[in-house]
Amino acid sequence: MRAEGRQNYKLTIAYDGTEYGGWQLQPNTVSIQQQIESALAIIVGEPVRVHGSGRTDAGVHARAQVAHAIFSTRHPPTTLGRALNANLPADIRVTAVQPVPVKFHARFSATGKEYRYQIDTRAAADPFLRRYAWHHPWSLDLAAMRCAAKLITGRHDFTALSANPLRVIDTPVRTVTKLTIRRHGPVLTISVSANGFLYKMVRSITGALVKVGEGRLTVPQLRDLLAGKRRTALVETAPAHGLFLWRVRY
Amino acid sequence: MRAEGRQNYKLTIAYDGTEYGGWQLQPNTVSIQQQIESALAIIVGEPVRVHGSGRTDAGVHARAQVAHAIFSTRHPPTTLGRALNANLPADIRVTAVQPVPVKFHARFSATGKEYRYQIDTRAAADPFLRRYAWHHPWSLDLAAMRCAAKLITGRHDFTALSANPLRVIDTPVRTVTKLTIRRHGPVLTISVSANGFLYKMVRSITGALVKVGEGRLTVPQLRDLLAGKRRTALVETAPAHGLFLWRVRY
Repeated sequence: MRAEGRQNYKLTIAYDGTEYGGWQLQPNTVSIQQQIESALAIIVGEPVRVHGSGRTDAGVHARAQVAHAIFSTRHPPTTLGRALNANLPADIRVTAVQPVPVKFHARFSATGKEYRYQIDTRAAADPFLRRYAWHHPWSLDLAAMRCAAKLITGRHDFTALSANPLRVIDTPVRTVTKLTIRRHGPVLTISVSANGFLYKMVRSITGALVKVGEGRLTVPQLRDLLAGKRRTALVETAPAHGLFLWRVRY
Repeated sequence: MRAEGRQNYKLTIAYDGTEYGGWQLQPNTVSIQQQIESALAIIVGEPVRVHGSGRTDAGVHARAQVAHAIFSTRHPPTTLGRALNANLPADIRVTAVQPVPVKFHARFSATGKEYRYQIDTRAAADPFLRRYAWHHPWSLDLAAMRCAAKLITGRHDFTALSANPLRVIDTPVRTVTKLTIRRHGPVLTISVSANGFLYKMVRSITGALVKVGEGRLTVPQLRDLLAGKRRTALVETAPAHGLFLWRVRY
């Protein structure tokens, strides 16, 4: 059973986060990581630790989360993917399994990530998006939001647009390489790419952009906020269920 | 409260059918119709009968089901729509309320309908489509399916492509005015418009098209089947959860 020795595998994972307490193992709630570790343990025959590219919060979804895990198996990658899916609930799917060099680390090898946030501006929420978009049935000034997006793009201290309660982090400086707002009929999609993200950064950026779109925050006020490097009550955090981890870059 | 007299209202309704026993009132299961009648009764203050354009089966969705109901209320249509949604579960939304002449009947005034059916051909099912598409991870011959679609389009006796167990219907002849198959990446969407539909007709058409796409049924065999005017085991009914009532024409 252990003939081939241990191999590092890169797993790409899509999940509907609605029913979970987030990506990361934690007490009193079911996590995505835990579901994948349980499925892997059944297939591999021993406990396996899975390392994600980063956490996603309770209720946040992923189109393509990435994780790595080192274990030994006789199965080729495609079979392994199918076996994992056979042992996972339908709201979590492994979409790719690739053998990678041992130095590949889902978190530390990542060079950037993209998140997307969906807003449903219909008067009555689309029932098919109720789990996947923030229902915000008030008109938004897209031009003002795009102006604010331009301001946020680039290298900044993102303390004002994140939440880091009592967490010691190396630096609150991140580079947002892309921030776009697209409209498809009544649905707005905010896409944010950066070299890294602080805690609740995308939901804070979304909250700020929406406040600008509502006319409750001006672009100069947002500039001052960002420069103030302090999280204040002026920035509201958008709800979790509109957020998707879209892609991890290596 | 009854000052304005009774008015006929056209309701347009979107619903995620996953949790329901179908559109129509029936024992031992919760129906969409029942949810709407309950919400209306709260607002209007007395029982109200709601008449749909037709049934949808258990698990089938609607982007725009239409119903009518006659009642008396002080509320203008927009307020009525908001009040209905406030009393409905999140998987059912009234998207429009319009006063209509008393002769408008959701079922008998309809001149045609469009249904759409989604098929997810990904190897691992998209978790966000798991309730809204049939997962069919085998390659399908789109050219053959389109050839079969051309055959089905037009005026036919659809007995072979429907299920009418012990139901007396006027005639099994219907006219399919449009039948298209579109591909968006790994997702196929079958759109069927007709002047009317027999029981399970779209799911039978989809089952037949997929069988042709798999190479398990030839177009000449399908022609013979249709001409035979008899439902046989050769036609399989596609699962309910990929089906959407897309539009009702008046």
